[in-house]
Amino acid sequence: MTFTHRHKVGFADVDPAGIVFYPRYFEMINATIEDWFRTLDYGFDQMILRDGYGVPTATIQVDFKAPSRLDDLVELELNLVRLGRSSIGLEIRISAEGELRALVQQTLVFIRMEGNKPVRIPDPLRARIERSMEAR
Amino acid sequence: MTFTHRHKVGFADVDPAGIVFYPRYFEMINATIEDWFRTLDYGFDQMILRDGYGVPTATIQVDFKAPSRLDDLVELELNLVRLGRSSIGLEIRISAEGELRALVQQTLVFIRMEGNKPVRIPDPLRARIERSMEAR
Amino acid sequence: MTFTHRHKVGFADVDPAGIVFYPRYFEMINATIEDWFRTLDYGFDQMILRDGYGVPTATIQVDFKAPSRLDDLVELELNLVRLGRSSIGLEIRISAEGELRALVQQTLVFIRMEGNKPVRIPDPLRARIERSMEAR
Amino acid sequence: MTFTHRHKVGFADVDPAGIVFYPRYFEMINATIEDWFRTLDYGFDQMILRDGYGVPTATIQVDFKAPSRLDDLVELELNLVRLGRSSIGLEIRISAEGELRALVQQTLVFIRMEGNKPVRIPDPLRARIERSMEAR
Repeated sequence: MTFTHRHKVGFADVDPAGIVFYPRYFEMINATIEDWFRTLDYGFDQMILRDGYGVPTATIQVDFKAPSRLDDLVELELNLVRLGRSSIGLEIRISAEGELRALVQQTLVFIRMEGNKPVRIPDPLRARIERSMEAR
Repeated sequence: MTFTHRHKVGFADVDPAGIVFYPRYFEMINATIEDWFRTLDYGFDQMILRDGYGVPTATIQVDFKAPSRLDDLVELELNLVRLGRSSIGLEIRISAEGELRALVQQTLVFIRMEGNKPVRIPDPLRARIERSMEAR
Repeated sequence: MTFTHRHKVGFADVDPAGIVFYPRYFEMINATIEDWFRTLDYGFDQMILRDGYGVPTATIQVDFKAPSRLDDLVELELNLVRLGRSSIGLEIRISAEGELRALVQQTLVFIRMEGNKPVRIPDPLRARIERSMEAR
Repeated sequence: MTFTHRHKVGFADVDPAGIVFYPRYFEMINATIEDWFRTLDYGFDQMILRDGYGVPTATIQVDFKAPSRLDDLVELELNLVRLGRSSIGLEIRISAEGELRALVQQTLVFIRMEGNKPVRIPDPLRARIERSMEAR
């Protein structure tokens, strides 16, 4: 039911306090969603650069629970919580070493890039999103 | 009543779709808070590296309203909305070209880095935070 | 004779060892060149996104002399050292606190983005580049 | 004879021109070296944060040959070219899709972080570096 992306915390991610600089979590979150779409056979390359659609973030809320450190293997577990006409509601649990590090609530909107207008998620993509969450 | 940080959107901020890659907003948000603490005479250098305190983000919520583009001059207007024993509630309005681009609700927690424990915001810093918001 | 770009070293730039993470210097170098082109009245927005030209880096060599730290105000001084048919040779001195931090030798190539082919630098741009270096 | 690090080019790496933003290559280069030290049983966590040593870059030269694009699987092949008293000379070939994208010449210096002074590479580490290159 869950799509999982893993990230090894490297030097580039960590601040002078020795912990993950929190803007880097959003790169990890973005990479998780990018990876998920790749498994849906609709990579960002195809979707955005060729077809002119996009899935910008409409809202994101993150509760940070505990810091991550250099060399931690961070897991981001993505779950679908709502699939609307043009919106995709996600929950992402970020954990490492068996500890919850952050909890993310995020809403993506499927848009046509030109004009930045929400459009209905096409049925084939909708079906693949649903299957992706059932099959796991 | 407001502390304002400005950021010129550069090539490094923009994705292949020609709009600001949203994780970069969190670097701008962090730079705004870092700048604000500098005006409070308690820069991150002193606070984190010398004194061993920190202000990690406990929660952040962002509503994205409209995309930003290359060469936009983005303004981040920070307002204090709550000052607790160890927590600092902020609202940051991100706008450019007279248009609201994103609205941020963020809670920082004042901690002792060692042990990652919330501690009471010291009175001199508390006074400077309050004055910073009144004086503007 | 010199174009100068300044950058305040922030938390985002610094690694767990407390010094500037060296890939961040290349963002500063890029911002310097981006700023310089803006003063030549040929910003990247116009050049790359509208006109379809670009100035990718062909070669870059950096000698790092001394580390930079949080809150340093880093100065990047750009000098033209060679202006060829389609290439632009630059030297950038990176310093802070009166100390040389790094020395950069860089060659840009003026290209048509489509096909990634070097093309002759147009005369009006060439004239502005030359004037930019004389006038200072 | 070669240590190889792979990186899938993601949305975060690519600029509005649709190609890898070149400062991101330096994050890939740094990740390659960080990975290599991990295989030498001397990860940056241990070396820098616990033991107080470091391997800052003294000089780096990059020749860019061809652009990389979204979804390219970039390979960075690291070879040792010189092992001095305190310096490590490396060549890194960056390629994708069977095409050379960039060629990197880099010199690291083994230092004691405190005082930023070059020191002799300890014999056990020196032996592991040599073996790492022979065994492959």
